[in-house]
Amino acid sequence: MDQTFAVGDLQAFCADIFQRMGYDEPQAKLAADVLLKADLRGIDSHGLARLSGYVRLWEAGRIRVDARPFVVHETPSTAWIDGDRGLGLLVAPFAMRVAIQKARQVGSGWVAVRNSNHFGIAGYHAMLALEEEMIGMALTNASPLVAPALSVERMLGTNPIAVAIPAGDEPPIVIDMATSAAANGKLEILQRKQALAPEGWIQDADGRPTRDPFALQQGGALLPLGSRLETGSHKGYCLSALVDILSGVLPGAGFGPWVPPFVHFLPLPQDAPPGAAGIGHFFGALRIDAFRPAEAFKTHIDSWIRRFRAARPLDAAEPVKVPGDPERMMEAQRRELGIPLHSSVVQALKALSERFGAHFPDPLHK
Amino acid sequence: MDQTFAVGDLQAFCADIFQRMGYDEPQAKLAADVLLKADLRGIDSHGLARLSGYVRLWEAGRIRVDARPFVVHETPSTAWIDGDRGLGLLVAPFAMRVAIQKARQVGSGWVAVRNSNHFGIAGYHAMLALEEEMIGMALTNASPLVAPALSVERMLGTNPIAVAIPAGDEPPIVIDMATSAAANGKLEILQRKQALAPEGWIQDADGRPTRDPFALQQGGALLPLGSRLETGSHKGYCLSALVDILSGVLPGAGFGPWVPPFVHFLPLPQDAPPGAAGIGHFFGALRIDAFRPAEAFKTHIDSWIRRFRAARPLDAAEPVKVPGDPERMMEAQRRELGIPLHSSVVQALKALSERFGAHFPDPLHK
Repeated sequence: MDQTFAVGDLQAFCADIFQRMGYDEPQAKLAADVLLKADLRGIDSHGLARLSGYVRLWEAGRIRVDARPFVVHETPSTAWIDGDRGLGLLVAPFAMRVAIQKARQVGSGWVAVRNSNHFGIAGYHAMLALEEEMIGMALTNASPLVAPALSVERMLGTNPIAVAIPAGDEPPIVIDMATSAAANGKLEILQRKQALAPEGWIQDADGRPTRDPFALQQGGALLPLGSRLETGSHKGYCLSALVDILSGVLPGAGFGPWVPPFVHFLPLPQDAPPGAAGIGHFFGALRIDAFRPAEAFKTHIDSWIRRFRAARPLDAAEPVKVPGDPERMMEAQRRELGIPLHSSVVQALKALSERFGAHFPDPLHK
Repeated sequence: MDQTFAVGDLQAFCADIFQRMGYDEPQAKLAADVLLKADLRGIDSHGLARLSGYVRLWEAGRIRVDARPFVVHETPSTAWIDGDRGLGLLVAPFAMRVAIQKARQVGSGWVAVRNSNHFGIAGYHAMLALEEEMIGMALTNASPLVAPALSVERMLGTNPIAVAIPAGDEPPIVIDMATSAAANGKLEILQRKQALAPEGWIQDADGRPTRDPFALQQGGALLPLGSRLETGSHKGYCLSALVDILSGVLPGAGFGPWVPPFVHFLPLPQDAPPGAAGIGHFFGALRIDAFRPAEAFKTHIDSWIRRFRAARPLDAAEPVKVPGDPERMMEAQRRELGIPLHSSVVQALKALSERFGAHFPDPLHK
């Protein structure tokens, strides 16, 4: 049911669509690069599968092509940025560059962004810090799908935390995780397969545990990491709240149940507090040698990585992994063999190609 | 079996012990304040129950009373501190003050500490930022008790994350959580009661799920937040790894399985990488008005708190809480009614009182 495409072909197609929406070539290429990175790393829900969603938000006037994100206020190590209702895929790298620039100058940089939109995978932006020998962080809030511990109301997004940590001879450590027990993309896969979800992912409209992957659409909610109170769902709730506060409340973006939905057909929240604009993000960059010499750090982080890979495994056939290993292996594989797209995604992309008169590439193996 | 004591009486006793160990009065009072805060907030495992543990580390020469923590290297927004093998209860507030001072000057401050020791509850140090209208963060690594996802080896501590966020008219939000499914202190309570643990806290020496609270002593391990792979134990592992890397690897403290154990009778790890000293911490302070005006933030954070408290509860009798609510309520209650101590803790404190010739207070109700 999947068709496989060459990475370069999909990148060119995606950039073409963004150019036809009105972005100039560098912007279009950057936005396509952010989206494709999700497909490459195996986070299929956040890649090309979302391209038509961005187009619909643009058609609905909720994303401005001529946006110019700007710094509203700053100090030597911090900045408050207004995304000017721009495409999150472009606002986020702009903001992360500001954080990196500040870290170059004063050791660390922290940027809170309001009035933005969905920014793809958080990991992309955090990883921008790696080439500078910095630790990078990226957080964002998102449309409410997750219920706080002991609640039946959807109040929080799957609010991801991404942190990228440079290493020496070893590849970098990259954490990129939703703060819910499972990301919504994983649920969508089960919905397509009509398969039951594992216990601990979802509750129904009355707050009862359920394995029905469609319960979310019927008034249910995703559960915070920890799933049940006795195994720490209050902790997942705390983490998601933290992301919402740093990304949403700190810059004056939408927060909690007032984060604007990604799907264009849902109305914007009507009762949002005044002055809370768009989706919010939070970025950080920490220069390693603002603490201790980078070489000494690299020696130790390489030891960390090797020691954890050598930890006694549960199953001898499956060695212990370090955060970022699965996504890096997936990226290497897909760069070589191409990116498989589900038929429904291919169909949506073909519709875009007709709508914009853009050339859609042939799959690698018919 | 518990006896209840007045807060001030326990504080005076605890400070007295620290003075008899050789600390001057302000140091002794600060260390007692940090320890008591754990008892006040209901984190009984990290309060007076640990006083004799600190004494034994001091007797074993693993804590230096004459330590003088110092800044090894700094930039305008960062510092690398050596704890000089001091008492973590004192090293941590010193380091947090450096972070706060930097945030005053350049918007944020970030401090990584090596060569320290256990610092009490992380929340105490994060909360120091609140009076400055800053967001405070405190992380620490700890003795290895937690297995990475898909491993049977204890490689990580319960590595807590604490974040304190100032509010306006509402009380502040305070997150203070272990990154394991359950903190070790909760397991100790079950051991005392000889009761089974909930599913999802522990695995045995072969990595099989178990409810036996003594499995940890028999080669088992605590599970990361998320408990099982399909409900996100790799995420809890990522969070714990992040804490270990920022607290341990970044400053050149012990990390992973090489973090020195808290109990004096376990030997220091022999095969630790050269240059990895003591336990490590990481602190941060973010000035609210380094992003946007504090008043605007306060209005929104108060809305956040009120909206989350008003979220539809699972059980009408139990309203949804905001992070920090349970601990704040506990503190108000214990300040008024006193602090209950388990008989085993009372016994250990009485032994200390004899050992040092210090007066141990009478309980409130005999």
